[in-house]
Amino acid sequence: MSGCPYFEKRHLLFKNKPPKTEDDEDASQAGVNNATKGGIIYGDYLQLNKILSSQVLQSELKSNKIHDEHLFIVTHQAYELWFKQILFELDSVREIFISGHVRDERNMLKVNTRIHRIVMIFRLLVDQFAVLETMTALDFFDFREYLSPASGFQSLQFRLLENKIGVPDTLRVPYNRRHYRDNFKGSDSELLLTTEQEPTLLKLVEEWLERTPGLEADGFNFWERLEINIFDGLNQEKEKIEKMPDTEEKEDMMAELVKQKEIFTSLFDDKRHDHLVSKGERRLSYKALQGALMIYFYREEPRFQVPFQLLTSLMDIDTLMTKWRYNHVCMVHRMIGSKAGTGGSSGYQYLRSTVSDRYKVFVDLFNLATFLVPRHWVPKLNPNVHTFLYMAECCDSSYCSSEDSD
Amino acid sequence: MSGCPYFEKRHLLFKNKPPKTEDDEDASQAGVNNATKGGIIYGDYLQLNKILSSQVLQSELKSNKIHDEHLFIVTHQAYELWFKQILFELDSVREIFISGHVRDERNMLKVNTRIHRIVMIFRLLVDQFAVLETMTALDFFDFREYLSPASGFQSLQFRLLENKIGVPDTLRVPYNRRHYRDNFKGSDSELLLTTEQEPTLLKLVEEWLERTPGLEADGFNFWERLEINIFDGLNQEKEKIEKMPDTEEKEDMMAELVKQKEIFTSLFDDKRHDHLVSKGERRLSYKALQGALMIYFYREEPRFQVPFQLLTSLMDIDTLMTKWRYNHVCMVHRMIGSKAGTGGSSGYQYLRSTVSDRYKVFVDLFNLATFLVPRHWVPKLNPNVHTFLYMAECCDSSYCSSEDSD
Amino acid sequence: MSGCPYFEKRHLLFKNKPPKTEDDEDASQAGVNNATKGGIIYGDYLQLNKILSSQVLQSELKSNKIHDEHLFIVTHQAYELWFKQILFELDSVREIFISGHVRDERNMLKVNTRIHRIVMIFRLLVDQFAVLETMTALDFFDFREYLSPASGFQSLQFRLLENKIGVPDTLRVPYNRRHYRDNFKGSDSELLLTTEQEPTLLKLVEEWLERTPGLEADGFNFWERLEINIFDGLNQEKEKIEKMPDTEEKEDMMAELVKQKEIFTSLFDDKRHDHLVSKGERRLSYKALQGALMIYFYREEPRFQVPFQLLTSLMDIDTLMTKWRYNHVCMVHRMIGSKAGTGGSSGYQYLRSTVSDRYKVFVDLFNLATFLVPRHWVPKLNPNVHTFLYMAECCDSSYCSSEDSD
Amino acid sequence: MSGCPYFEKRHLLFKNKPPKTEDDEDASQAGVNNATKGGIIYGDYLQLNKILSSQVLQSELKSNKIHDEHLFIVTHQAYELWFKQILFELDSVREIFISGHVRDERNMLKVNTRIHRIVMIFRLLVDQFAVLETMTALDFFDFREYLSPASGFQSLQFRLLENKIGVPDTLRVPYNRRHYRDNFKGSDSELLLTTEQEPTLLKLVEEWLERTPGLEADGFNFWERLEINIFDGLNQEKEKIEKMPDTEEKEDMMAELVKQKEIFTSLFDDKRHDHLVSKGERRLSYKALQGALMIYFYREEPRFQVPFQLLTSLMDIDTLMTKWRYNHVCMVHRMIGSKAGTGGSSGYQYLRSTVSDRYKVFVDLFNLATFLVPRHWVPKLNPNVHTFLYMAECCDSSYCSSEDSD
Repeated sequence: MSGCPYFEKRHLLFKNKPPKTEDDEDASQAGVNNATKGGIIYGDYLQLNKILSSQVLQSELKSNKIHDEHLFIVTHQAYELWFKQILFELDSVREIFISGHVRDERNMLKVNTRIHRIVMIFRLLVDQFAVLETMTALDFFDFREYLSPASGFQSLQFRLLENKIGVPDTLRVPYNRRHYRDNFKGSDSELLLTTEQEPTLLKLVEEWLERTPGLEADGFNFWERLEINIFDGLNQEKEKIEKMPDTEEKEDMMAELVKQKEIFTSLFDDKRHDHLVSKGERRLSYKALQGALMIYFYREEPRFQVPFQLLTSLMDIDTLMTKWRYNHVCMVHRMIGSKAGTGGSSGYQYLRSTVSDRYKVFVDLFNLATFLVPRHWVPKLNPNVHTFLYMAECCDSSYCSSEDSD
Repeated sequence: MSGCPYFEKRHLLFKNKPPKTEDDEDASQAGVNNATKGGIIYGDYLQLNKILSSQVLQSELKSNKIHDEHLFIVTHQAYELWFKQILFELDSVREIFISGHVRDERNMLKVNTRIHRIVMIFRLLVDQFAVLETMTALDFFDFREYLSPASGFQSLQFRLLENKIGVPDTLRVPYNRRHYRDNFKGSDSELLLTTEQEPTLLKLVEEWLERTPGLEADGFNFWERLEINIFDGLNQEKEKIEKMPDTEEKEDMMAELVKQKEIFTSLFDDKRHDHLVSKGERRLSYKALQGALMIYFYREEPRFQVPFQLLTSLMDIDTLMTKWRYNHVCMVHRMIGSKAGTGGSSGYQYLRSTVSDRYKVFVDLFNLATFLVPRHWVPKLNPNVHTFLYMAECCDSSYCSSEDSD
Repeated sequence: MSGCPYFEKRHLLFKNKPPKTEDDEDASQAGVNNATKGGIIYGDYLQLNKILSSQVLQSELKSNKIHDEHLFIVTHQAYELWFKQILFELDSVREIFISGHVRDERNMLKVNTRIHRIVMIFRLLVDQFAVLETMTALDFFDFREYLSPASGFQSLQFRLLENKIGVPDTLRVPYNRRHYRDNFKGSDSELLLTTEQEPTLLKLVEEWLERTPGLEADGFNFWERLEINIFDGLNQEKEKIEKMPDTEEKEDMMAELVKQKEIFTSLFDDKRHDHLVSKGERRLSYKALQGALMIYFYREEPRFQVPFQLLTSLMDIDTLMTKWRYNHVCMVHRMIGSKAGTGGSSGYQYLRSTVSDRYKVFVDLFNLATFLVPRHWVPKLNPNVHTFLYMAECCDSSYCSSEDSD
Repeated sequence: MSGCPYFEKRHLLFKNKPPKTEDDEDASQAGVNNATKGGIIYGDYLQLNKILSSQVLQSELKSNKIHDEHLFIVTHQAYELWFKQILFELDSVREIFISGHVRDERNMLKVNTRIHRIVMIFRLLVDQFAVLETMTALDFFDFREYLSPASGFQSLQFRLLENKIGVPDTLRVPYNRRHYRDNFKGSDSELLLTTEQEPTLLKLVEEWLERTPGLEADGFNFWERLEINIFDGLNQEKEKIEKMPDTEEKEDMMAELVKQKEIFTSLFDDKRHDHLVSKGERRLSYKALQGALMIYFYREEPRFQVPFQLLTSLMDIDTLMTKWRYNHVCMVHRMIGSKAGTGGSSGYQYLRSTVSDRYKVFVDLFNLATFLVPRHWVPKLNPNVHTFLYMAECCDSSYCSSEDSD
């Protein structure tokens, strides 16, 4: 960046690396000093020789240089750079979960910050379409033949991202009846397969939610208490309505009550839950769903404040990914039209179909909004449980919050 | 980009390159066919092997990997990618001006579109700080020692950009008493020197403005007519005020009138203009200033609609570059503090000083707002001049609007 | 706005109103002077007493004040303020078209600027969701019962906006089987009916496009020339392919050629066009479609530069309105869930269905991307036609570009 | 908002108000039922009759309607609406601090969320300039005379906002030598005076920071431990450097060491702190500064995660307010020019001077970046202190997190 002074800050004195032995220290010191002498400069640090030499216009190779192809290339490269950053953050978060470090509450700030960073990047990526949209369909037409058969379907990083977050193979919309992995060559295809088999962010969050303190049947037993409170509440409502004089309004209210009862009956029906999971309409385990709802209801407890933020950020990611898809669809419509009525598979129609709740990984967190209840129906924490919740943070102090062991 | 169908559009049939001979055609056809067979794929097209392998963390090399350095690198690389795109657009626009193609009005759409694209990119770059701001001062502290002596001052592309738009050496704020070119090694320093000597966008726009039809002394003679109208108008105002009864209000109005008269006297004083130019407070020639004001006043004439948009976009670029600088300053303040009161040169203070009108290349276009007058003071176009303005577009029809000869 | 100096600029001397008689002038002068004495102040000018006293929380009226209801109210009021501004711009543009002033090319800058302003406002409105999204589903749940039966379906201005742009009654998705106008009381419902019967922006643009110079059968005859060129071009391609040795590639190319031929045959089939119009898949008349394609192909002609920008902005509006709808859907999903599987009509599902090409008024402008051809297939303008296009701007110079007669 | 289904959600069954007596309950029930019958509708709820009837163009009153004045009014009204929302959030946060509810950690989520909401609103307000910028200087000139003497300096809400956050009278840049309160009429001026005397957000945050657990001299005694560690660290560095052979590098390092020592000596010098406070260069008390640095260093402790986010958001507000000011300056430059060289006080120059660190209320939080140290210099929490920090949250469980008592 231009003239960024903190960039050049010389700070030889402070060694962040914890000193080990006197000898080690000297050695690293020496290394730093050498680096300072000749020194690394901005362009080398950023490897700009590679970054800035990677814009080769196919149209120019074909002796028909089209100006706007440069924008097309740079925009896609910028997307890929940011995808790499998202994957980097995502992997580091998954690592914290996988390694169990997430059990040390101190790591929640890191998890939360990095997930939030992904949110901010996606927000930028959605805005970034405004730049590519300065290219018109006519500009694009001038060079689009030269791109064949290169295709955005071949963006390895985006598919990795989907897999690692938790878009399952089974919910993908097929394109031209081909499996998505068939668009990739051998080693890439294997990499994709691997990520399908690794724990996804969804899976890791699910396991973490299942451990939400307060769910234990022999403890606070949140779920049973909630069920009791809700049906008590509904019954009291029913009694009140029944005492009302017979009017249209009374009928309406009774109908609404019946509907609410159905909704909550479905909530406490684990068989129904498993059925919805099997159809792909729910993605979290029943226990994890309970944990999420518990965090929703007790979000103000110190223990749950940051977890609540995390759930919100996960929904942000889902929302922004679908917004990204939708913005993409809008641009494609502008660039190639919908080809409505001409027959043949339409890329536009395909993309449109991916702007779907099937691709929302954390769809359950959204749908929990259906199951909210008045605050006074929420089971009260007794002082003991209060303490319990607070104390839960007191992890073994010998367990170290390993900074960036990832 | 993920699953972008227009990207993979096979469009073998349409050759945009004008056919030359039968043989040539067949040859190019063959080439395309081959490309289709083995074919270029997405990752190769974008040279992702280079783009995505350029993130080397200095902290990791020093065996103390700091997570957030990755974001730092990717953000700066994204900035540099977009700087390259801006330079590409800027060079193409300068080429249209230098080659004289701008005299064919058909090329104004291209000029306007590309300058507007630069505006949109800068808008994105300003927003992009929000991503880097997810890194805190503490995160940055952990790896900033490893960057030494790499410095944003060493961003060649940003300096080229400033030079090519028209930030002159003489108006630059010195940093630590060193000339800005001294931050660059030999070949880069020469490149910078070259761009200082080439025609800048400012210079090219200036020449174009000087040719604004209607300025000719033996033609419509806009400037003289305007001067007459303005001073006639001011005199009529004066007479009216003098007839008013003596009140405080009358005094106020007379004082305001005197002030206005001074302002407009200064406008028509070419010596004063040259003086301001010599001090760097004005940047355009006197004739170009007249052309710009003419475009302002007659912006609704078909001939001037697109030129007016162009002047607006040039101000947008200036504004966005200072906003970029200001956002940069804000981030630096957060990252390293102001070091107020500690002594020593402060990078923060330096950067702050560059958020200045000295760095606004098209400052004259802003300041013309000082010289606006009521619509009925603006010299009327007589029917002949109307026709003249319209006809001026009729360039030699044999002159070809060469598409993308750049 | 805080401390905005241009706001308070005293500028008594300049009367923009063209002077009529000496007496008139004095009178208006007096008026201004009085205004200056006592003077209008910021808060009165903006009627802040009304604006800032309009936030009445229903929850507070029901003695259960919920903090976040204030945000909910202010956000919706901000939306409605901006809707009013959009309607104001839209009406002024429609008036320029209806009055025929659009035939004076000088008014195109105004049309273009105002349509672009609508684009900028919609861009803000899409971003504005980020503020409301700081409210969680749980915050919303606390007061949503008090809103009954107030409903966003009752936003008169948004329905007026849809009608005036050109969303037809017949393409609206019904909600709960009720006609959209049934959500409004008598006078509002009549107002809506009126706007359904007035000329829409779509209709006005259509009429304007039908007059595109160059379409005349006894003139340049763009459409016939284009048809000839395209089928000549396709036939030449066919011949070339037929000469190729029999390979799989040859087959592919021939299949692609057949497809292209079908596409273009459909383009020149006016019966088919009328059929698609009757189904709502196309919205412009056949003649208007020709005009639009002509502007696309000759966008660099001075005459067509601003019209081309206008067509682009119209697509922007369509795109942004669907993005607005989609962002709205995303927020609703978060606030109330999808209620998937609970039965009953779902507001979420309804809203989702309105994010559809049925609601894209200028869908034809997008779909024209399907009918692009190589530049050398586009009929050449002969020098005469060139001149013709330029001269067309020379409207009657006695016809005055009436500034802001709206 | 258009067609917003959650808006109309009928939810008669759920009463959020905690039931008091059977009778009360019935009464409120009845009330709600009545509301449902006749019912409140969207337009009445939002008081759109007032909101949408408040756009009176002064130019129209003066019989010279200028189209763009409508945009000018609506934009300013939108700003004022959002200022009201910001004040509403700010007051609620101040109330939580003033009432002492902030001592219940459960309220930190609320504080944090609301401060973050202010951040999001300011982000929108910065973007909102893009809409007003569609008005050119020439459009503005056409009606700016009618605004006299209304002035943005008269925005009561913006001045209240500045006062309540903590811009002190003494640091304000005077405009035309007048006190800022002189721009307001009696009752408004008194209101401003009141807010100058009430506890500002700065003051309240300061008090809260002073109570940061761990600062106590008879407890963890953070400040003394930190001082010891830092000077130990510096001395060790010194010894290492002294052992190096005499080279230029050694000299550089020694010079840097001396500089660092000075910086840290100043940090632990309370007299110097008070001196900087008296000059307005520091704004927090010495104790509060210590608390802030403690939160920085231990931000990963569960106890400090949300407080750390809060400090970050406070800097965001400062940054966004200066960005808002700077965007405002840029627009004013475009609208009225700088009037450089014409003499007389310039509104543009005044505004520019307010884009200053003098107006950054939480400037100390930025400048703490100067005082960061390597992680291994930060005093270790011993297991007891760990527990202490965790336990500190265990407030009296009988103390109730009063929801929205504000």
